[in-house]
Amino acid sequence: MKNEELLHHYLGALIDELARSGVRHVCICPGSRSTPLAMRFADHPGFRIWIHIDERSAAFFALGMAKTLREPVALVCTSGTASANFFPAVVEAFHGRVPLIVLTADRPHELRDIGAPQTIDQLRLYGTHVKWFTEMALPETTPDMFRYVRTVASRAAAVAATAPSGPVHLNFPLREPLVPSAAEEANSFARTAEQPYVSAIRGEHHLSGPQMQQLADQLRRTANGLIVCGPLDQPDFAKSVVALAETLGYPVLADPLSQVRCGSHRKDVVINSYDAFLRDSRFVEDTVPEVVIRLGAMPVSKPLLLYLKRHSACRQIVVDTIERWNEPTLLATELVHASPVLFCQELNAQLASQSGLSGVPAVSVRGDASWLKIWQTANEQTELAMQDTVLSMQEPFEGRVFTELADLLPDGSVLYVGNSMPVRDQDTFFPRKDQDIRFLANRGANGIDGIVSSSLGAAAASEGPVVLVIGDLSFYHDLNGLLAAKRHGLHLTIILLNNDGGGIFSFLPQAEHPRHFETLFGTPIGLDFEKAVEMYGGSFTRPENWDTFRRSVTSALEGDGLHVIELRTDRQLNVRQHRQIWKAVSDMLDNGRKRETL
Amino acid sequence: MKNEELLHHYLGALIDELARSGVRHVCICPGSRSTPLAMRFADHPGFRIWIHIDERSAAFFALGMAKTLREPVALVCTSGTASANFFPAVVEAFHGRVPLIVLTADRPHELRDIGAPQTIDQLRLYGTHVKWFTEMALPETTPDMFRYVRTVASRAAAVAATAPSGPVHLNFPLREPLVPSAAEEANSFARTAEQPYVSAIRGEHHLSGPQMQQLADQLRRTANGLIVCGPLDQPDFAKSVVALAETLGYPVLADPLSQVRCGSHRKDVVINSYDAFLRDSRFVEDTVPEVVIRLGAMPVSKPLLLYLKRHSACRQIVVDTIERWNEPTLLATELVHASPVLFCQELNAQLASQSGLSGVPAVSVRGDASWLKIWQTANEQTELAMQDTVLSMQEPFEGRVFTELADLLPDGSVLYVGNSMPVRDQDTFFPRKDQDIRFLANRGANGIDGIVSSSLGAAAASEGPVVLVIGDLSFYHDLNGLLAAKRHGLHLTIILLNNDGGGIFSFLPQAEHPRHFETLFGTPIGLDFEKAVEMYGGSFTRPENWDTFRRSVTSALEGDGLHVIELRTDRQLNVRQHRQIWKAVSDMLDNGRKRETL
Repeated sequence: MKNEELLHHYLGALIDELARSGVRHVCICPGSRSTPLAMRFADHPGFRIWIHIDERSAAFFALGMAKTLREPVALVCTSGTASANFFPAVVEAFHGRVPLIVLTADRPHELRDIGAPQTIDQLRLYGTHVKWFTEMALPETTPDMFRYVRTVASRAAAVAATAPSGPVHLNFPLREPLVPSAAEEANSFARTAEQPYVSAIRGEHHLSGPQMQQLADQLRRTANGLIVCGPLDQPDFAKSVVALAETLGYPVLADPLSQVRCGSHRKDVVINSYDAFLRDSRFVEDTVPEVVIRLGAMPVSKPLLLYLKRHSACRQIVVDTIERWNEPTLLATELVHASPVLFCQELNAQLASQSGLSGVPAVSVRGDASWLKIWQTANEQTELAMQDTVLSMQEPFEGRVFTELADLLPDGSVLYVGNSMPVRDQDTFFPRKDQDIRFLANRGANGIDGIVSSSLGAAAASEGPVVLVIGDLSFYHDLNGLLAAKRHGLHLTIILLNNDGGGIFSFLPQAEHPRHFETLFGTPIGLDFEKAVEMYGGSFTRPENWDTFRRSVTSALEGDGLHVIELRTDRQLNVRQHRQIWKAVSDMLDNGRKRETL
Repeated sequence: MKNEELLHHYLGALIDELARSGVRHVCICPGSRSTPLAMRFADHPGFRIWIHIDERSAAFFALGMAKTLREPVALVCTSGTASANFFPAVVEAFHGRVPLIVLTADRPHELRDIGAPQTIDQLRLYGTHVKWFTEMALPETTPDMFRYVRTVASRAAAVAATAPSGPVHLNFPLREPLVPSAAEEANSFARTAEQPYVSAIRGEHHLSGPQMQQLADQLRRTANGLIVCGPLDQPDFAKSVVALAETLGYPVLADPLSQVRCGSHRKDVVINSYDAFLRDSRFVEDTVPEVVIRLGAMPVSKPLLLYLKRHSACRQIVVDTIERWNEPTLLATELVHASPVLFCQELNAQLASQSGLSGVPAVSVRGDASWLKIWQTANEQTELAMQDTVLSMQEPFEGRVFTELADLLPDGSVLYVGNSMPVRDQDTFFPRKDQDIRFLANRGANGIDGIVSSSLGAAAASEGPVVLVIGDLSFYHDLNGLLAAKRHGLHLTIILLNNDGGGIFSFLPQAEHPRHFETLFGTPIGLDFEKAVEMYGGSFTRPENWDTFRRSVTSALEGDGLHVIELRTDRQLNVRQHRQIWKAVSDMLDNGRKRETL
């Protein structure tokens, strides 16, 4: 059989099986060696094709899609440095547990490692940063090889999607001629059965009845417990964890990225402003937990981390996969290998069946103020103090973007945030809300790279509107990503917090070293992004006040296409504003304590 | 000793030793974990600091500098995906043999692989794509550890610079607090001696006297030899290889990237238009070499590759390092492990001493036309045919840029070309010239990524003016690179060949598949780059004809800052224009053959 026909049938079978395994989207970067992959994907009616020129942006776009859809997205590139450009997003996908299927074209064995053009060592190219790597066989069409190639496709999709989900990498040695046979029916993909070649039926980890019973017994006798929810994005998690917390009488310290702050579930046990009030040393000293149950990745809040470290003698239960050991505090006493949703549901069921009640009464820790009440009161007081302070500010304040968005975002919207300051300000300032808002961020490796593309991938996949809040350095880093908005007519609203440089460094000890500060850390870049946004066919506005900000956001949400709303802020002022808020919170808590002792 | 002091002394010693080993430039990307590296580099009087926000662009900028200076350039980033963004340039540096010293900050061991922020597995992050990787010890200041850290620095510089030069990777576990002690004298770097801690004294491979004598004996008896020079950038190479060729009476088929086409050396044995006339099947069939000596990497020209394959029975001697085996034709009969310059000089000396003459008379292969004359005549005829055809074209033609530049570029200038079409058109159309022009391109892995930054790195390092010729997709891919021009006030002239898409694909078999062609391969992006160039503070012109083109280039070369000169062309027309030229060349050769037979 001619190579063109081998390519047609062999790659066709693989691609067909990816479709049967539930992969619906493929991001393709143009190239020559990858021609047969690109053409067979384009032939297949089961795929939507997304073309990208910059492979780095392409991979982050795929990541944003896969995250939003909670399903594997395929990614194709040619041989050489093209595949190296996928690396940052592959690393993020591995740590952020995002299912990606990376298909890289390669030269065949006889052209490797001898100086042939666009040929690099692509074997295990992404090192330890993929869940599975395999070097594909050269195209053949024996029955055995069809079984092989279809199995690889089923397996790639299954491995990528199984918790902890992540990237897989298939490397394809491909010989010339590279154009698959046109003599064949383009849409023919051979197998007619409906189901995948191998159906991957995934189980979930959970604790046995006796294990759960023991834990429930212990927790029933523990009054002062905390539930800490970090980045996690599972349907039903918010409802399940809140129900558990209500039964236990434990407050739930919920990072926005845990998806617990917003939605239609009950939220009176949900604590949202801990990042501010755990900066109050008196509160930290006085409020001693007996047990902490952690679910999801480590929350963004540094005060929360320091609070846990301050009370390091306390029992700390981390629910996660054992292999990944997502426990940077080094304080865990138990690492529970179970699905977070199942853990909450089964523990709650166990508690209910033991007590015969729907909930266990919380035990007061001092006087008549229950443990839960302490946290709830601090939360309310903090919210009030923050609101007052923020509203009193004359100058634009970055954190206010999140309180404003909380009122503006409709049900079903996605809020993507950049790393560094936006994700922290979101944590500090985003309140609880009843509308269903999905919070996304690249918190696998917390890079400032690829955020624009990730949010555009979310926009391509989301039914509701998508808003990105991002700083200027991160926006610049992935400016290329905006091409996808233009090419694919995507609807995205970007709130650009432009403080001309790296705002986070002003909060760090480096800020006290003026000799090098602006050069090495502040790094102002002085770009007028309006021109770039215009080039990519977006609208650009720079609102003068919060009224016009709100109008701009509303109109962007209701419109279509790309909208960039820039807020110009000042890095030094930003630090003072944050400190002003933290002081107001401490003052408010002090006043509360004074009223109590009267 | 406090961590701040350990950082100060330990990293200071390393950085000091890099300076003593001849490293003078460091590209630094802002980050927190990398703070002590960045601050100690900034403290050291021996370094020029280049700050970049996008690590991908930073690494390609460093590559362009290192290539231009022919010396190692250091590169610093923080932990996490920042280091993954260096990957494409590291791969290019490995295959392009460019000395880079990559210093990545990392979390210390106790914070690895447990979900700590911005922490990824950085051990052997670049896999097989670096010459040396080492995980550094935690900072300590015992005498042994000072010996260690100074030795590592000497070694890193030596390994990076030794042929085949390439990237090395040092990974630094660093603990908080991260700001090095300010109590110490910032400029103190402890050791006072002038020389490096270890001076690396590099030898070069060459053949022994008897080996060389045997080869010289054989070549003296071989009339029909060819010397093929691919990408190579060594001072004295052009002079040495031309002298050898003159002695042997062999033509030198010289890729522009071999640096043999231009300069003050004699050039009558240099053949520059072979890419065009080796498309003539009659010439290929009639002109049978007995021996081919190849120096440098594989030339760009595909017709040359096919010519070598057509005459696969011929002896082929490839001069390169044995380890890298830079021989994609699989036709070599001998792989000679020797420095190309030494090889040419010593072989020439051997030939001269044997013959007692300064040159061996060339032996005629048919009638009175000597072997060399056949090539020289074809070269001249081809140049004439190409010149006539190019000048007759009404529509703008991409290839003409290079014949125009050949007249415009002053002595001492650098011409950087993008991959895909520009490097091929340069090969086809750049004539021999007496002025000294240095030709640079990223021909390690031939990617279209990072070219803008690489050329800006060249501009930062070059004494003469730098011109980049690049296509629109490659320009878009590294648009971020332009920030360096603005930040560092660099002088660069960019000729942007904008055919709105991937022009090379129109030459490939994919072009015959209209169903997918524009979507998957043509990929027009429709960007008006003027806006982006304006954002980065550059000037932008779109000349209407070759007169205004010449004026634009001249004025850009004489000015300073960033100049982008855009030539709008058409992909389909471009293919027709190239084919028209190749036909004119064949016609001219035919006429020549007819005249001969009369």
